[in-house]
Amino acid sequence: MAAEQDPEARAAARPLLTDLYQATMALGYWRAGRARDAAEFELFFRRCPFGGAFALAAGLRDCVRFLRAFRLRDADVQFLASVLPPDTDPAFFEHLRALDCSEVPLLQVSGPLLVVQLLETPLLCLVSYASLVATNAARLRLIAGPEKRLLEMGLRRAQGPDGGLTASTYSYLGGFDSSSNVLAGQLRGVPVAGTLAHSFVTSFSGSEVPPDPMLAPAAGEGPGVDLAAKAQVWLEQVCAHLGLGVQEPHPGERAAFVAYALAFPRAFQGLLDTYSVWRSGLPNFLAVALALGELGYRAVGVRLDSGDLLQQAQEIRKVFRAAAAQFQVPWLESVLIVVSNNIDEEALARLAQEGSEVNVIGIGTSVVTCPQQPSLGGVYKLVAVGGQPRMKLTEDPEKQTLPGSKAAFRLLGSDGSPLMDMLQLAEEPVPQAGQELRVWPPGAQEPCTVRPAQVEPLLRLCLQQGQLCEPLPSLAESRALAQLSLSRLSPEHRRLRSPAQYQVVLSERLQALVNSLCAGQSP
Amino acid sequence: MAAEQDPEARAAARPLLTDLYQATMALGYWRAGRARDAAEFELFFRRCPFGGAFALAAGLRDCVRFLRAFRLRDADVQFLASVLPPDTDPAFFEHLRALDCSEVPLLQVSGPLLVVQLLETPLLCLVSYASLVATNAARLRLIAGPEKRLLEMGLRRAQGPDGGLTASTYSYLGGFDSSSNVLAGQLRGVPVAGTLAHSFVTSFSGSEVPPDPMLAPAAGEGPGVDLAAKAQVWLEQVCAHLGLGVQEPHPGERAAFVAYALAFPRAFQGLLDTYSVWRSGLPNFLAVALALGELGYRAVGVRLDSGDLLQQAQEIRKVFRAAAAQFQVPWLESVLIVVSNNIDEEALARLAQEGSEVNVIGIGTSVVTCPQQPSLGGVYKLVAVGGQPRMKLTEDPEKQTLPGSKAAFRLLGSDGSPLMDMLQLAEEPVPQAGQELRVWPPGAQEPCTVRPAQVEPLLRLCLQQGQLCEPLPSLAESRALAQLSLSRLSPEHRRLRSPAQYQVVLSERLQALVNSLCAGQSP
Repeated sequence: MAAEQDPEARAAARPLLTDLYQATMALGYWRAGRARDAAEFELFFRRCPFGGAFALAAGLRDCVRFLRAFRLRDADVQFLASVLPPDTDPAFFEHLRALDCSEVPLLQVSGPLLVVQLLETPLLCLVSYASLVATNAARLRLIAGPEKRLLEMGLRRAQGPDGGLTASTYSYLGGFDSSSNVLAGQLRGVPVAGTLAHSFVTSFSGSEVPPDPMLAPAAGEGPGVDLAAKAQVWLEQVCAHLGLGVQEPHPGERAAFVAYALAFPRAFQGLLDTYSVWRSGLPNFLAVALALGELGYRAVGVRLDSGDLLQQAQEIRKVFRAAAAQFQVPWLESVLIVVSNNIDEEALARLAQEGSEVNVIGIGTSVVTCPQQPSLGGVYKLVAVGGQPRMKLTEDPEKQTLPGSKAAFRLLGSDGSPLMDMLQLAEEPVPQAGQELRVWPPGAQEPCTVRPAQVEPLLRLCLQQGQLCEPLPSLAESRALAQLSLSRLSPEHRRLRSPAQYQVVLSERLQALVNSLCAGQSP
Repeated sequence: MAAEQDPEARAAARPLLTDLYQATMALGYWRAGRARDAAEFELFFRRCPFGGAFALAAGLRDCVRFLRAFRLRDADVQFLASVLPPDTDPAFFEHLRALDCSEVPLLQVSGPLLVVQLLETPLLCLVSYASLVATNAARLRLIAGPEKRLLEMGLRRAQGPDGGLTASTYSYLGGFDSSSNVLAGQLRGVPVAGTLAHSFVTSFSGSEVPPDPMLAPAAGEGPGVDLAAKAQVWLEQVCAHLGLGVQEPHPGERAAFVAYALAFPRAFQGLLDTYSVWRSGLPNFLAVALALGELGYRAVGVRLDSGDLLQQAQEIRKVFRAAAAQFQVPWLESVLIVVSNNIDEEALARLAQEGSEVNVIGIGTSVVTCPQQPSLGGVYKLVAVGGQPRMKLTEDPEKQTLPGSKAAFRLLGSDGSPLMDMLQLAEEPVPQAGQELRVWPPGAQEPCTVRPAQVEPLLRLCLQQGQLCEPLPSLAESRALAQLSLSRLSPEHRRLRSPAQYQVVLSERLQALVNSLCAGQSP
């Protein structure tokens, strides 16, 4: 396959985005005459992140894009030549120049030994964080429940530009509703959202004169109105209603709200906590919202970024209800309350509790950086070469691998919920629904039996000979699939703390292969 | 300034790599006629990361590259139009199309209000993680001491491709010696290093026939030798010396070592723990190293990736010393011992202790993900607009900002070590060495006095009218500067746990401005 003309792919993950040892090993394979040996790697992780019993696997689209564009350019080969021994055979570099991934399917990765080795680091880089952040987002969605809107806003806390783009894309996949990241909207189709920051508010003193203070009514007919003047009139009524002096609300903040409302009359939101929520932000918001309302527009929301967010939300809702009654504008009751400020799982649980008046929750640092576990620990291990199974038999049992080319199945109960996943050798017959299977749980001394009501194959051939075997799902489709999968998981497995461990068992033949390799016999 | 032709800059941080609210605020400013108001923002953080008293500020080069290339393309403007209100004045989009950063210097960022607002998120994204990971690397360097070589190998644990590139670049700046990341070598000049993985070892069974098993002597004269056969001969001597059966070392591992040595006769390293360090990896390494030695080559190192790394290193060094004496190859004593496997600050301290035989330490996850604190919490705040100071006066004192356009100085003692940093208003006279200064520590009720022996200005004009004011230091120069700065810090400030807090004080006039704005007076 020729390298695809996809500038984003080249920018995001180039062939040299890899650990040097992949290149030194490539030379080792080449020198040993083994570059084109048929090899198979598996990309997997050993433990679900965050102490949970599930993980979302994400990043396939990025991997496919990377693989289809995989080509070493002249400059890449020259750089490798500069860091490899000076007497390296030039024919090796010719081999590198000619490499592509046309013989490589995914995510069991099979193909010529040299090239599938080179893919290790970029594939891990593309899959591990995507899966980690998607899983993190899924946990936050489970905590928030289905009703609260979740906004990802962690770009500035991410590991540079692409970390931010990956975080925004895959937190949406994991169950968030939108992102603040515009590039994620442009490149990946993530719904974007955002309003105004404190700097917008502090940039106004109240003495500015807008070039055009007039706003036409929402219906489009009738004369325009000076919104600032109209808000000033409403401010007096609002302050009287709230028992505040009309001088108390900050004039700069009100000017900022008017400026924002002039730009976004149909999507006005106020950020309430630049000066004082109760003495300034809230009365200024109400004054501008009521002025807009007179023109037939409905304000959309308020945002809080400090203090006790739940308590403030409850009190603000009361104020909205009272003002809605007082000024006869029923829509004011349901203005959205948006909160943000270092919200983690614990804070989110509180904000999502029964009776909370919070509607939208913005989360940055704790979705993007995954502070409970900032990396997934994905690995990419050789399982077969030249048709022969391979196994890492280290003295550390944690780091042993499962040998051989495999198939994977999800075994389901009669209610459709997953019982366990089963790994078997690729050449074994596919297990059937209703069949009694003898399987080996990890570390068990003897097999147990299971009779699944349904069996789902977990591996699908995605890329073969450089061609997609079926269209990849869209990001929104993947998001829906993730939510569906999670909804089918039993409550004990879905629980976020101390969940029941979800088992991955081995077929008898796979267990026998492991035993024979451990005993030092050739398979 | 025209957009620079820098494909890397466009790929790394585009103008749309920003939070949507920057664009909505831009429309708000534009609608209010304030797009070109002169504005000044400051990018800073409130607390040093990891509980320490220092941080390295990093990312300037990336910021400059981003600013010089800053231009919204047609596709960018069209995307923004699709997420802003449909009746937005087309003149706003014309304004966006014409934007560039030719009026913007760094890292106090001054320029037209609309454009410096748009820069908030990308600048934070470029500076925060770079500074965090550089600081993290500097801490690890302080723990390791100057002698141990530190290799960064966290690409696969980073937040996608660019997270990995940023981590590799700035962990080098912070004091690491090299990175496994080839792209960081190609694009940023970071020294790269790497050898072989377990998959290389497990890919050999020992039955493979290399196309050319012959290796010429290092001096280049004389006939080639079959390295595999030579290693087999040495294996018998090594096993006899170590008291092992000659069948015990894994033949596939030895074939892998031979293959690697054929490719890298001058840089042979062995990965010892694929099967068993003592019964397989070490004797196989010694056999191949001694075979190479007969041809005049010196093996470079061994790597351990599991188990008690320190204890193994101590015992391996003893074996090397005994074998060096036994086989009369003195260089074998000083073969490098390279270790890796989830090394964090605590594990590193143990590996770097007095008498440790470890030479090179590979660190991935804990340098790249900064698990102690995965984000810096950088902020970007408006401090002046139209020449008037601005301050966020929120009820949360933690989130208040310091108003006004400022200058910053480092006050040094007579031994050259920094006493404190001082912020003052830009228009105040520069403090002089030997002058008694009245300054306000944060939160103090009254001023204190300080008489610095030396005064260093901390801000330098870097970019003005789109032009660099002086060449930026190279990455290696920045790395040297960081180490020099850290060496000048007093031990109490450099301490990693419970350090003395380094003070940043305000001049009397700046304190007075804060007081007057807090009291609600116009300045």
